[in-house]
Formats: sequence, C-alpha cells, structure tokens
Amino acid sequence: MSLLIVGSLAFDDIETPFGSSLNTLGGSSTYIALSASYFTDQIRMVGVVGSDFEQQHFDLLHSRNIDTRGVQMVKTGKTFRWAGRYHYDMNTRDTLDTQLNVFADFDPEVPAEYRNSEFVCLGNIDPELQLKVLGQISKPKLVILDTMNFWIESKPEELKKTLAHVDVFILNDSEARLLSGDPNLVRSARIIRALGPKTVIIKKGEHGALLFTEDGIFAAPAFPLESIYDPTGAGDTFAGGFIGHLTRCEAITDREMRRAVLYGSAMASFCVEKFGTEKIAAVDLLEIEDRFQSFRELSRIDG
Amino acid sequence: MSLLIVGSLAFDDIETPFGSSLNTLGGSSTYIALSASYFTDQIRMVGVVGSDFEQQHFDLLHSRNIDTRGVQMVKTGKTFRWAGRYHYDMNTRDTLDTQLNVFADFDPEVPAEYRNSEFVCLGNIDPELQLKVLGQISKPKLVILDTMNFWIESKPEELKKTLAHVDVFILNDSEARLLSGDPNLVRSARIIRALGPKTVIIKKGEHGALLFTEDGIFAAPAFPLESIYDPTGAGDTFAGGFIGHLTRCEAITDREMRRAVLYGSAMASFCVEKFGTEKIAAVDLLEIEDRFQSFRELSRIDG
Repeated sequence: MSLLIVGSLAFDDIETPFGSSLNTLGGSSTYIALSASYFTDQIRMVGVVGSDFEQQHFDLLHSRNIDTRGVQMVKTGKTFRWAGRYHYDMNTRDTLDTQLNVFADFDPEVPAEYRNSEFVCLGNIDPELQLKVLGQISKPKLVILDTMNFWIESKPEELKKTLAHVDVFILNDSEARLLSGDPNLVRSARIIRALGPKTVIIKKGEHGALLFTEDGIFAAPAFPLESIYDPTGAGDTFAGGFIGHLTRCEAITDREMRRAVLYGSAMASFCVEKFGTEKIAAVDLLEIEDRFQSFRELSRIDG
Repeated sequence: MSLLIVGSLAFDDIETPFGSSLNTLGGSSTYIALSASYFTDQIRMVGVVGSDFEQQHFDLLHSRNIDTRGVQMVKTGKTFRWAGRYHYDMNTRDTLDTQLNVFADFDPEVPAEYRNSEFVCLGNIDPELQLKVLGQISKPKLVILDTMNFWIESKPEELKKTLAHVDVFILNDSEARLLSGDPNLVRSARIIRALGPKTVIIKKGEHGALLFTEDGIFAAPAFPLESIYDPTGAGDTFAGGFIGHLTRCEAITDREMRRAVLYGSAMASFCVEKFGTEKIAAVDLLEIEDRFQSFRELSRIDG
C-alpha cells in the first residue's frame, strides 16, 4: 500500500569514536523512506533540497523505488546540513553545526497524485507543517508522527493540536517525560494517548522500545550489538521499518503492531552498524528476516 | 532443594519522594531469602546481627520457613544500619549514613548442617569472605554471586579469584562496564564470562536484564509499573527469585534460566511496590504466577 513520507533531506557530517563521515546523505525522510522501502514499493516523498543535492542522491532513492516527485528543488539554495559528534558511550552527542538552508522556508506541498496515500509518516518537522500536510491527504488509513524535544518545548500547543489527528506517535523516553510532565513512562504514555494517538511508542535507545496500545503494553528489546558505529538516523529508521511492515498487513492488529516494532527495531539495528545510510541502503530481505527472527529469539521463553 | 544464602542483615532508613520508612528490616540476605522462600522451603541463612535484632525479625524470617541457625548474634554490638534517600526519578540515590556495626567483623561460618547445601547464593559482601564461604561447602550444584562497585574498585583481584568458582554472576550495567573496562555490554559480558562464570546476568534497573549464557542472549523487560515506591533491595530480590526458581528445576537448562530471570524480575517488581520488605514478605503464590505470566505477555509476539 502507498506510503507518504514527509520530513527532511540533509547532508550530515558525523564524528564518532570510530571514525567520521562527511557530506553523507541523511535527513529524517531519507532514513524513513530507505528503511520502509524493503516493505513496500509505493513510497512517496515530500521534502525540499538545494542545488547541491545531486543526481546520484536521487538515483540512490530511485534505486529503492522511492518516488521523489514531491521533493522540491530550490536551485538558489543549499540542502539542510547538520554536523554532530558522538561521545564515547554513543548515547549522547553534541550538535556542532546546523544550517537549515532551504529547509528554513519549507512549506510542504503534497502533489495531487500523492493525496490518496493510505499511510502517512510525518517525520520530525514543525508540528504546524505536519498538520498542514494532513490537511492535504484525503483519507489516510494510518498516520504516524515523530517529533523532537525542540518542538515539544517551542510549540507544545501546536504539537497537541496535530496529535489529535495522529494514530501512532513515536517519541523517545526523555521526550515522553518532557511532554507529559511525568517521569514514569507508563503514566506518560497514558497522558500522551489522551491527546489523541491510540498508539504510543516510546523509544529507549539501547534499551529497546515500549509499545502502548488499547490492548496493553509490549516491551521490545534492543539488539545487543557488539559494535555500534553511528546512531544517526536510528530513530527514523525504526519508524520506517515499523510503518513499512504495517503497509503490507491486511489488518492492523495488536499482533501486527508488535511485529512492526520488531521490524522497526531490526532495521534500526542495521542502521547503526555502518555510517549514515550506508547499511540501510543495501541490506537484503533475507538479512532482515534473519534479524527479525533473532529479535524474537532474544525474548523467547518457550518452544 | 537446599539453598544457602550469605549476606547482610540490616536496618534501613529509607526516604523516597513518596514517603519514608525508618528502622525497616533490610540487608542483602534478607531480601534474597524472603524472595527465594516462595520457591523452596529449605533456605539456610548465614549472617550476623546485633542485640537490636529482635525476636519479631527472626519470627518474620521463620514464618517464611527460613532457617536462621547460621545467623550469629553479637550481643555486644548493633546490627548493620544504612540510610539513604532516593531522587525524584528513583534511579539514583544518596547514601546518608552507613554504620557497619557487627558487620565490620563478619567472618562467615557455615554451620556443619548447612555444608551439604546444593545451591549457594553469595550476597554482596567482601569477595574474600565469599570465597571463604565456598571453601566450607562440600559440592554445591550451583553458585551465584552478587557484588557492587565498591568491591570492583577496592578488591578487583580478590573478586576475580572468587569469580573463578562461580556459576552465575549477577551485576548491574555500570558495574559490568567498570569490571570489564568496556562500555559495550555484549563485549563486557564476554570479558566477564572469561573470568569464570558461565552465566552472567546484567541488570539494567527500569530497563530489565540481560542473561548471557553459552546458548545465547536473553533480554528480559522490566515490568512497566505505574508506581514505584522504594527500589531498595530490588536487585537482591531479583537474585532470590532467580535462584529460587532454579532450586525447583530438575535440570538447569537455558529455558529454565530464562524463566528464572522472569521469576526474579517478577519478585523485584513486587519489591518496589512497597517500602522495604513489606511486599515480598507477604506476596502469595498466585500473585507471583500472575506477574510471571504478565511478564511473558509483555514480550509475546504470537499466540
């Protein structure tokens, strides 16, 4: 089924204790789309880039069957740039530089041919723009939204207004505590679900993720990797694998939601094994199934 | 089967954001023994108390069928005392006061009638004393050991010497990183397993626990509780439930190890719901089975 993805496209300069990567293709919608592309070939991308976004970058996205007709190119400007450095433990990072460039005036316009999209994934952008995108879609089957602490702090009311139209809200543990004002994640999830999204996923980085639905709570472990090279994009990659799996389900049941969390976790575990999008641009379906099974094995008790 | 437990008996003064509890019965061996007492009635305790340890405290232990003949009473001294205050997030605490009292000269002597114990749980005490205890047991079937950062920092060589005689080593994530010198928990576990213990359990507090065995890795979630009143003793309670379940198994397989981790987690989740040992002194078997099933449900994918 068709999946519309809205978010940033970017070039990142990444430093980790294990090396660095300059001018590497990144951005929330890039990671989401690449990750979801292993589950559906009807991916439509809305975003904005500058003249430095080269044909090879479009080619990479097209090689994964991603439709980029909704990506505007502003020839007079440059693509969004981010530079960051991860600390020794890989759990924390410093932002060294942010250049919004053409992203500063991003006003997402959903092309007519995208408006019947059945699944919508709103990557981390201004909640007012996220709502504006939703207003351009006729009748989406499932809307998922990602955000970040910046929007929770600067536009809490706008975010809440947008959340009323969202089915699945993905955020991390510190963002959940910030938005709910409650340090306990179970209570946080209840408070956040009351804002609209029936399903809330709280990501806990190296500690996995918690899925809160009407049917209960599911705790997914993170994959115990020996080597993590670059955590950049792991959260977006999780979202892409999660919604990607759902696009191929006949019905969105609690069981499929749980499986979707494991597929998202599997994709995220690949993402961090190489720099930038290197791994998720070139993983194969067999590897994904193997990793999914390994995740199941990780919390298996019987059988 | 018989289970020998060695560790501290104490009185604690506990402050949390939700209240406080003074002079409450605590200590590592108290929590381990109470927790394990729901799984076996052949529990033998070795420890030391002072004249302030009253008959009512012995009565509580006896009411759970715990054999306290190995608990020495030093009439001229006082029982070990600890006072601590938990922060708002309940994950960190300040020690306000530690009075070792009779525990300062604790020289564990295993009574003759305890020396055939099949299971041995060495609570957090000086690793040299832990080794001394092991020298007094004829042929234990399974030895599990708990420790803390204090011993890792002050007696690393003694701890390593003791670990060579241990089957299951339980420690938390920061202790694992400290002992191994590696921030990655998967690599840490491999380094620590090379010191002797074939099984290593790394506790991650509110993020659950990881079990590392020859057969692989098992990730157990923590129970998503809405209200945590007092984390004191949760780690010891985990150890008690873990070894308690194993004492009733015909064979110690990977499957039973995984189930034991969930029983330990279930007991720990009860522990934190009330102050001190209040809850784990009076939980019932049906509640334990219910909580165990809830833990399974938490990471269930199918069925």
